[in-house]
Amino acid sequence: MKSDTPTLRRRTLLAGAAGAAAAGLAGPETAAAQEKAPETKPGALPDYVAWKDGGTLIVHSDKTLETRREAFGTGLITPANRLYIRNNVNPPSAAILADRDAWTVEIGGVKEPRRISLRELKGLGLESVATVLQCSGNGRKYFQDGLTGGQKISGTPWTVGAAGCVIWSGVPLRAVVEALGGPQDGVRFITGTGGEEIPPGLKPKDIVVERSVPLATLDTVLLAWEMNGEPLSLAHGGPLRMVVPGYSGVNNVKYVKAVALTPAETDAKIQAASYRMHGVGEKPAPTQPPVWEQPVRSWITTPLATVAAGRVQVAGVAFGGVNAVRGVEVSADGGATWVPARLVGPDLGRFAWRLFAASLDLAPGRHVLASRATDAAGAVQPEDTPANGGGYSHNGWRGPAVAITAT
Amino acid sequence: MKSDTPTLRRRTLLAGAAGAAAAGLAGPETAAAQEKAPETKPGALPDYVAWKDGGTLIVHSDKTLETRREAFGTGLITPANRLYIRNNVNPPSAAILADRDAWTVEIGGVKEPRRISLRELKGLGLESVATVLQCSGNGRKYFQDGLTGGQKISGTPWTVGAAGCVIWSGVPLRAVVEALGGPQDGVRFITGTGGEEIPPGLKPKDIVVERSVPLATLDTVLLAWEMNGEPLSLAHGGPLRMVVPGYSGVNNVKYVKAVALTPAETDAKIQAASYRMHGVGEKPAPTQPPVWEQPVRSWITTPLATVAAGRVQVAGVAFGGVNAVRGVEVSADGGATWVPARLVGPDLGRFAWRLFAASLDLAPGRHVLASRATDAAGAVQPEDTPANGGGYSHNGWRGPAVAITAT
Repeated sequence: MKSDTPTLRRRTLLAGAAGAAAAGLAGPETAAAQEKAPETKPGALPDYVAWKDGGTLIVHSDKTLETRREAFGTGLITPANRLYIRNNVNPPSAAILADRDAWTVEIGGVKEPRRISLRELKGLGLESVATVLQCSGNGRKYFQDGLTGGQKISGTPWTVGAAGCVIWSGVPLRAVVEALGGPQDGVRFITGTGGEEIPPGLKPKDIVVERSVPLATLDTVLLAWEMNGEPLSLAHGGPLRMVVPGYSGVNNVKYVKAVALTPAETDAKIQAASYRMHGVGEKPAPTQPPVWEQPVRSWITTPLATVAAGRVQVAGVAFGGVNAVRGVEVSADGGATWVPARLVGPDLGRFAWRLFAASLDLAPGRHVLASRATDAAGAVQPEDTPANGGGYSHNGWRGPAVAITAT
Repeated sequence: MKSDTPTLRRRTLLAGAAGAAAAGLAGPETAAAQEKAPETKPGALPDYVAWKDGGTLIVHSDKTLETRREAFGTGLITPANRLYIRNNVNPPSAAILADRDAWTVEIGGVKEPRRISLRELKGLGLESVATVLQCSGNGRKYFQDGLTGGQKISGTPWTVGAAGCVIWSGVPLRAVVEALGGPQDGVRFITGTGGEEIPPGLKPKDIVVERSVPLATLDTVLLAWEMNGEPLSLAHGGPLRMVVPGYSGVNNVKYVKAVALTPAETDAKIQAASYRMHGVGEKPAPTQPPVWEQPVRSWITTPLATVAAGRVQVAGVAFGGVNAVRGVEVSADGGATWVPARLVGPDLGRFAWRLFAASLDLAPGRHVLASRATDAAGAVQPEDTPANGGGYSHNGWRGPAVAITAT
């Protein structure tokens, strides 16, 4: 089964190298630019996320809200009220939360396919997993800033805040599949279908949030009804979400109403003609690698502006998609020299991010802080990620570098 | 050093066996009684915790608020707005949070003693740890329910909710001690002093929250300024708290204004004549064992009332104080027979609690669910903890057993 499911990282690097023109040259000024973003007034939050902490979020639009970099703290788990939002389609009515246990999901591609209620799912198993939930386009701004010669990448200009680390609780999809007789022969993917309403007059295949991931993820996929210990909010996909640990946000289907083991990827537009790794200026196509596993990545969360000169603790977060983090290096001179950071605090498992910290002696003046992570498979963050047309899977260390002043 | 610091557990069991009369006979009805407690209206929260989620808390008094058992969820980390409150003295003015970095703590018992600011502490190191924070009296109600013959244990009748699992971030005390030249000769304890105001006319030693713990904890004590990724709230001891992982709540000194390595335990009343393991009806005295390390403990968090008959996931939390959890067993017949539970989800380290789950087939009718944990040192929860005069360190499995109905 493994050989049928090449990882995104391998594919991405090849596609990126082949398809990209001049690599992103965004400097540390981008971090300063983020700091200048006006503080969101709580009133500016869309209704369905009115319960969030507006002061910790940048509102790009009513479907795209980014966590401010300074709001990550050092607590590992991102509180729900600070977690980013990225919706492809308007969320369904909140009425679907009125009786959570009555929500049903159609399970297909198994020997005994049928519709199953959340109430019944809760009896089939219980597992909990910490994962980095990250928009596929997190860091897109660093690609955009680096483009020259009239090239363009459209999409939300996320910096680092379209990501968080949360704990999900639910039933392993494997337990559900086994309860229904096991997989049908010939299946190679897990295809989840979201419960968003399709506006009348539009083609369902153009709108539906239906994503396919390799069958190998059956070992880790969760049908989750809790996030951070609370019943899953509508904003984050409640009452039930398909969580694919290590895979970028779009693969974690919200309000999941159907899960099928399938012989092929879905032909829904969001899978076939979007979230593909293609060159800048090229059109997406099903022949290109899909955006699946997240590549190794890190960024500094403190300090971000000014700091007293002398011994300074530089800290941040690092993660490796489906791989654990092996180590992190930190630079105070924009990447000319590097020192090892310590991995500190609890290890929440390979799909979560790790907190890192390094003690640096900083003289008065300007310093450009950068971090560079290595994952357990040996992949290292590049200086710049080769650009791709959708602005996906950025993981270069130079984009999120931050210029600070020691006084 | 170790030989100077016998663990509480060893001392507790001896003291409890010697000092206690009839052991607690509280049955599963106590869980039902908790369910009958009226729901707190948010307006009933004291001002300093008005930001908490009133629906998840039982307000015993303005200084004692308990997390409802059903509010623990399965997320491992207890959100700050659901975490219990137990104050011995009124909190200081919120003005102490106006400039957090300006807060100072006097460090004594080191070669170069001096006052140090939070700003400077932040440069000395950064560590993060997940711990079970639990009131020393959590479970006191089970002792009280079991008393006969006119015996009495006074204090808040906590059941299971004076506890939570949170992530702290701060500087290891060891790094601070080393920066100040290391320990003075002859020191055997770490003594932390809280910043509560002493009302005029009262003896400071009678009021001050000053606690001593064995010097061996220097390997793990943190001076913490963040909890769950956010600057520490006043209610939970901000701007700075001395966190002693694995030790019961009172030892985790809030608004800590002084930390000294000392040759002896403090003679403050809260250490010398309170939080001691003494027999029911006896007076506390400095010769009795102090309430320090938390014993191994667990309780079920779901289901708590009615459930559909058939396959049911029984889940809960288990912890071992300074020891990891080795395993948990679950019973559906009030402790007559036991089956092993699975430890599920992230392992946040030995001071945190683990989530456990067991799949049970429950026929229609009444079932009494109980859980029994074993820690890495081999300690097993007893059926009943021998009573002690202060109602401290309850860890029997029978008290928190819960009667449910499968329909």
